[in-house]
Amino acid sequence: MPNSLEQIKQRLRDFADERDWDQFHSPKNLAMALIVEVAELVEHFQWLKEEESHSLPPEKLVEVAQELADIQIYLIRLADKLGIDLLGAVEKKISLNEKKYPVDKVRGSSRKYSEYPE
Amino acid sequence: MPNSLEQIKQRLRDFADERDWDQFHSPKNLAMALIVEVAELVEHFQWLKEEESHSLPPEKLVEVAQELADIQIYLIRLADKLGIDLLGAVEKKISLNEKKYPVDKVRGSSRKYSEYPE
Amino acid sequence: MPNSLEQIKQRLRDFADERDWDQFHSPKNLAMALIVEVAELVEHFQWLKEEESHSLPPEKLVEVAQELADIQIYLIRLADKLGIDLLGAVEKKISLNEKKYPVDKVRGSSRKYSEYPE
Amino acid sequence: MPNSLEQIKQRLRDFADERDWDQFHSPKNLAMALIVEVAELVEHFQWLKEEESHSLPPEKLVEVAQELADIQIYLIRLADKLGIDLLGAVEKKISLNEKKYPVDKVRGSSRKYSEYPE
Repeated sequence: MPNSLEQIKQRLRDFADERDWDQFHSPKNLAMALIVEVAELVEHFQWLKEEESHSLPPEKLVEVAQELADIQIYLIRLADKLGIDLLGAVEKKISLNEKKYPVDKVRGSSRKYSEYPE
Repeated sequence: MPNSLEQIKQRLRDFADERDWDQFHSPKNLAMALIVEVAELVEHFQWLKEEESHSLPPEKLVEVAQELADIQIYLIRLADKLGIDLLGAVEKKISLNEKKYPVDKVRGSSRKYSEYPE
Repeated sequence: MPNSLEQIKQRLRDFADERDWDQFHSPKNLAMALIVEVAELVEHFQWLKEEESHSLPPEKLVEVAQELADIQIYLIRLADKLGIDLLGAVEKKISLNEKKYPVDKVRGSSRKYSEYPE
Repeated sequence: MPNSLEQIKQRLRDFADERDWDQFHSPKNLAMALIVEVAELVEHFQWLKEEESHSLPPEKLVEVAQELADIQIYLIRLADKLGIDLLGAVEKKISLNEKKYPVDKVRGSSRKYSEYPE
C-alpha cells in the first residue's frame, strides 16, 4: 500500500524540505492555502444544477480530481505541522456523529439535518 | 488497519444511508459543506500571529483536530459520490508537483513559491 | 444619507481604535475574517434546493441579512486598510465586465457564463 | 454621486437581464460565487507575512482592488435577489457590535477579541 496517509505525509515533508518551503508552512498559512484550494473546487460547481453536479463531463472530472488531491495534500500537511493524527481524529468524529444523530431520531428529518453538522 | 480511507468511505455511506441523508449529498452541496468546515478551521487562526499558530493551547488543538476530521470526512464523501480515487489522485498530483517545481530551480526562491500551487 | 460607505468606513475606524483592535487588522487577517463570514452565509444555503434559496423563511432572512452585513463591514474595513477606493474599483470592474461579456455574444450562452467571472 | 449602492444594484440587474443570466443567480449560487471571489482575494495573502500584507506592490494592489470589486458586486447582487437592504443591515449590525463589545470591557483584551465576531 504505497499510498497510505503516513507515506504521503513523509513525502510532503521531503517535498517542502528539499525546496526550503517549510518556512512558509505555518498552520495559519496552510489553513489559508487549504481554503483557497477548496474554493477552486467550489468554482466548478457554482453555476451547475444539483443534478448536473452528479455527472460531470470526463474532462471536468479530471480537473475536479486534481482539486480534491490539492485539498487532501494540504490537509495532510496541516495535520502534520500541528502533530494531529488525522485518521484518529476522523475515527473519533464519526463515533461522535453516530451518537449525536441517532438513526431512529433523525431518519427522514431534514430539519435535523439542516442543522447537521454544526 | 481499521482506519483506511476505504473503510471510512464505506462507513460514511452507511451513515448517510441509515439516516436517509444521501438525498442531500449532491457534489454541489458537499462542496459547500466542505468549504464551510474549512472556514471553521480558518476561524481558529484568523487573529493569531503565524508563530502562535504553531503552538496552539491543548484545548484549541482538540477543537482544531475536530475541524480537520470534518474536512477529511466531507472530502472522502465527495470523492466517493464523484467516483474519484482520492489517494490515486494525490499520488498523481504530487508527481506532477515534483516535475513542476524542480528542486534546483525553486530552492530558496520565494517568488516561485508565491505562485505555487496556482 | 447617513449610511454612505464613506461614513461607515469612518465609523469602523473609530470602532477599532476605541477598542485598540487596529493591531489585529492586517489585510492578511481581515481577508481571513472576511472568508469566515462568507462561509457562515454559505452555511445557510448548503442543504437548500436552489428554489428554496429564493424564499427563505423570515427568521432565516434576518440571520442572512446579518451575515451580509458582516461581510460588508469587513470588506469596507479591508479596503480602508489597503487604501482602496471600493466604489471606484466596482465602477471600473463593471465597465470591464461589460466589455468582456458583450450582450450579443453571450446572450443565452451558458457555456460562456460557466466561465464567467474567472 | 453616480456610484451609490442603489445605482450599482440597478446596473447589475440590467447587466444580468441583458445577458439572460438572471436564471443562474439563485441566492444559493450567488453565495458560492461570492466565496470563490473571496478565496481569490485570500490567495494574494496566503504566503505573505502580516507586515508584508500592509504594503503590497502597486501591481498586486491593482489585482487586489479588482478582487474587492468582485466581492462587492456579488454582495450587492445577492442582497438584491434576497430583498435585503444592505446598508440598513450594516447600520443595525454596527450598533449591535457596539453594544456587544463595550469599549471599557474589551479595550486591550485580545482574549475577548479572539472570540469576536463569532
